[in-house]
Amino acid sequence: MALNSLGREIPESYAGKPLIPYGDPYAIRPQGNVAARPLKRVNPGHNKRLSSLREAIEASGLKDGMTIATHHSLRNGDFLLNRIVAEIAAMGLKGIWIASSSVHPVHAEIIPHIKSGVIAGFQCGVNGLIGEMATKGELTCPIVVRTHGGRARSVIEGSVHIDVAFIAAPCCDEYGNMNGYYGPSACGSLGYAQIDATYASCVIAVTDNLVPFPVVPVSIPQTLVDYVVVVDRLGDPAKIVSTTTRVTTDPVGLQIASYASQVIEASGLLRDGFSFQTGSGGISLAVAEKVRNAMRKGSIKGSFGCGGITGYFVDMLEEGLFSALMDVQCFDQEAVQSIGRNRAHQEISADMYANPFNAGAVVNRLDCVILGATEVDTSFNVNVNTESNGYLLHNTGGHSDTAAGAKLSIIVAPSIRGRLPIVRDRVTTITTPGETIGVVVTERGIAVNEKHAELKEELVRRKLPVKDIAELQREICRVTGTPRPLEFEDEVVAVIEYRDGSIIDVVRRVKE
Amino acid sequence: MALNSLGREIPESYAGKPLIPYGDPYAIRPQGNVAARPLKRVNPGHNKRLSSLREAIEASGLKDGMTIATHHSLRNGDFLLNRIVAEIAAMGLKGIWIASSSVHPVHAEIIPHIKSGVIAGFQCGVNGLIGEMATKGELTCPIVVRTHGGRARSVIEGSVHIDVAFIAAPCCDEYGNMNGYYGPSACGSLGYAQIDATYASCVIAVTDNLVPFPVVPVSIPQTLVDYVVVVDRLGDPAKIVSTTTRVTTDPVGLQIASYASQVIEASGLLRDGFSFQTGSGGISLAVAEKVRNAMRKGSIKGSFGCGGITGYFVDMLEEGLFSALMDVQCFDQEAVQSIGRNRAHQEISADMYANPFNAGAVVNRLDCVILGATEVDTSFNVNVNTESNGYLLHNTGGHSDTAAGAKLSIIVAPSIRGRLPIVRDRVTTITTPGETIGVVVTERGIAVNEKHAELKEELVRRKLPVKDIAELQREICRVTGTPRPLEFEDEVVAVIEYRDGSIIDVVRRVKE
Repeated sequence: MALNSLGREIPESYAGKPLIPYGDPYAIRPQGNVAARPLKRVNPGHNKRLSSLREAIEASGLKDGMTIATHHSLRNGDFLLNRIVAEIAAMGLKGIWIASSSVHPVHAEIIPHIKSGVIAGFQCGVNGLIGEMATKGELTCPIVVRTHGGRARSVIEGSVHIDVAFIAAPCCDEYGNMNGYYGPSACGSLGYAQIDATYASCVIAVTDNLVPFPVVPVSIPQTLVDYVVVVDRLGDPAKIVSTTTRVTTDPVGLQIASYASQVIEASGLLRDGFSFQTGSGGISLAVAEKVRNAMRKGSIKGSFGCGGITGYFVDMLEEGLFSALMDVQCFDQEAVQSIGRNRAHQEISADMYANPFNAGAVVNRLDCVILGATEVDTSFNVNVNTESNGYLLHNTGGHSDTAAGAKLSIIVAPSIRGRLPIVRDRVTTITTPGETIGVVVTERGIAVNEKHAELKEELVRRKLPVKDIAELQREICRVTGTPRPLEFEDEVVAVIEYRDGSIIDVVRRVKE
Repeated sequence: MALNSLGREIPESYAGKPLIPYGDPYAIRPQGNVAARPLKRVNPGHNKRLSSLREAIEASGLKDGMTIATHHSLRNGDFLLNRIVAEIAAMGLKGIWIASSSVHPVHAEIIPHIKSGVIAGFQCGVNGLIGEMATKGELTCPIVVRTHGGRARSVIEGSVHIDVAFIAAPCCDEYGNMNGYYGPSACGSLGYAQIDATYASCVIAVTDNLVPFPVVPVSIPQTLVDYVVVVDRLGDPAKIVSTTTRVTTDPVGLQIASYASQVIEASGLLRDGFSFQTGSGGISLAVAEKVRNAMRKGSIKGSFGCGGITGYFVDMLEEGLFSALMDVQCFDQEAVQSIGRNRAHQEISADMYANPFNAGAVVNRLDCVILGATEVDTSFNVNVNTESNGYLLHNTGGHSDTAAGAKLSIIVAPSIRGRLPIVRDRVTTITTPGETIGVVVTERGIAVNEKHAELKEELVRRKLPVKDIAELQREICRVTGTPRPLEFEDEVVAVIEYRDGSIIDVVRRVKE
């Protein structure tokens, strides 16, 4: 057991692998080479079509203890992972690791297969019941939570090797060329799957929309795809890009958005060339709306919008407020349609989006990112993985990646959530280190990290309610009271890997 | 010394590496993994811009004996390779290997640096004076001639490692995102350079058109690019896409084209889904014109056009005769403009185009390819590398790749060239094995490989002048006389690598 630089106790190893305690966001230099998949040979006349998932799994050579992956661009509408795990179980395989880009509540269906030992653990974060049950001690399966960039890094550096990648391919030809732009299960960008296709030993394209050769544009090329399987449906289109992408109407949310947009204006970043990322939550979109209005008013021509892309950003691109969108995943149907028709809406891989171990990711070029939090501590450390009950419920996404990359990362959150204060002495779990967070905005005030002293001064000058973060905490706790600390067992049920592979925190079993 | 399966004497090693004699087009199975470049880390705020080529070469760590590469999409208009070699010479480096995708006559400027030992040799084929001088014994520099697919293979499997790739980037941002679509040196597809960028230890983007971040569409991403250098001019736009892409008006050429197009019609391949490649020569284009007319007449909707792309194929795409173009290099300005505006005009890497060692290249999907020849023998083996004087003058290009991939490969050539017969007992150099050639078309008759017995029958039925290839040879030689055999020294000045890495032939020094 060692303390990392944020004071969290990190065990020496987890799931059989030694752990490196987190030090700082930028120091670790990668050693060695990128991972390498096997060379292949496919001669003319070869047929890649197989008749079923079962046949494809058999052909892939999947064996006990190996690792599989799917992408999460179909989100909670995904049918594929459940079907694969059911087939694997039916085949009698055991001890399979899942290294998908994310796992969603819909995948709770695989829980019996975790209990039976078909699934050994997760080389990825999980959303929903699986994490909750693990935290309660009801499931035994190691979980290594990774950022989007960190997941790309782990596969590219080879610390996670995907034996068989199953790629849900919304538009695919018989030779494996695919994109996510068209078809009943269109999801837009295949930015996560591009990594799997490039580094997995075996790649199986699974489609419900087989079209004549060749699919163009090509998002993932035939050269990487071993087998092609047609299924009836990849997912439930109503849930594939399901995020509610509506601007909040809640007065608290609107107040937060107003403050956040004023912070951006005060930062001096909102000038020609401005680059920006927001999530798809109601507050984030309210910030985006205010930023859009400010850009219109100031005739500001931005550079790029980034991340998970919503119709909001599509509108800003089409209006000329951005010159490009850099899209690792589409959050709504407007984004899906845009990426299929507009070449300035650029599909990017998770590597290009956020991997810290390449010659420079897109997050490095961000001026400003708007991020959420379940908790923040007085050192600006942020938790998005666990809720205040200690349950692991959320994957990290691009949170730590964009925070580390952007010139200014802004946390927007209501000061009170579920009667609990957002600002804590100590967050339940550290997802993103405070040294990469610029500003925390609540409806009760704005806390600025000391690293941004000039910005703080400017906010004060503009008469915005700037407060010391400890002061903000006290003010909130006067309303909520001081929450009783959670109690945990020693048992580690998940580790939170920082984007560079070091361990920023662990999740322990909650005491009943 | 061993005989390969085509009876050519292959030395045991060349330039310090053991040689594998050619066996057959499809048998060699690759072993091991794809090559891996070093992991990198670039933190936010890092500046990739360097002020000169010299500074970039210094930063790259280039040392004596290392290997550099450029791409040849600027063809005979390229300024970059000459400038790099001049800088390397000025820095006092020695023994540098060139592994460019091709070398053109304009690069004869580096000959003094070969003589002085700055340049040790070529891990690629060469066009023009360098090969000629090597064949005459006037230059000592090993030359390993590779097909476009074989060159991609050699880099991807790691048998050739590029230490520093210099990428002429017609449209580039300061972080290294680039495409070839726009700018004064626009060349269209960067299909060759994509390989270099992905596998080289160090990647330097060189541009004469630095544009604001981010370049979209991204053909080569920032994640692969270490440095960015701005120069005044990358090349001479008048020569960058310089190929004369005019249909021949020569009656002999038109006769050949007419026969070739009738062969295609007789083959049964010219139906919906037809896929096709031609070069940019006058006869090839005449064939394309006739095929286009036949497609119009028959209301045939083709699948894709492939290869080096000309305005001819662009017109066919826009007319709906193809649903896509798969473009590894643009042969003219019409193609450059099309790839920049039409997403059905798909940029593909040399890996995707023609590498035999991946999960399936585009050439595997070709129905028909039209190819040239300097000589053909009575076993259908084809020479495109040397002329009948024995001089190594031409690189292989995609010749052997497409011949191996396509269902039907057709050689079009005048029966007599420079008073010499096109059909020989033995070609000076074997570039492409006869077992991958379907038909040889001359104005004096059509020879069909026995592998295509049904096609031969159909051509006879259609009363086309089908002749046994030996008979065709005799008929031509009655006009030309039998040429005197060339005489060679034992010294091997170049090896002709087949696409799979085996050696199909060698080029020996010509006896004076």
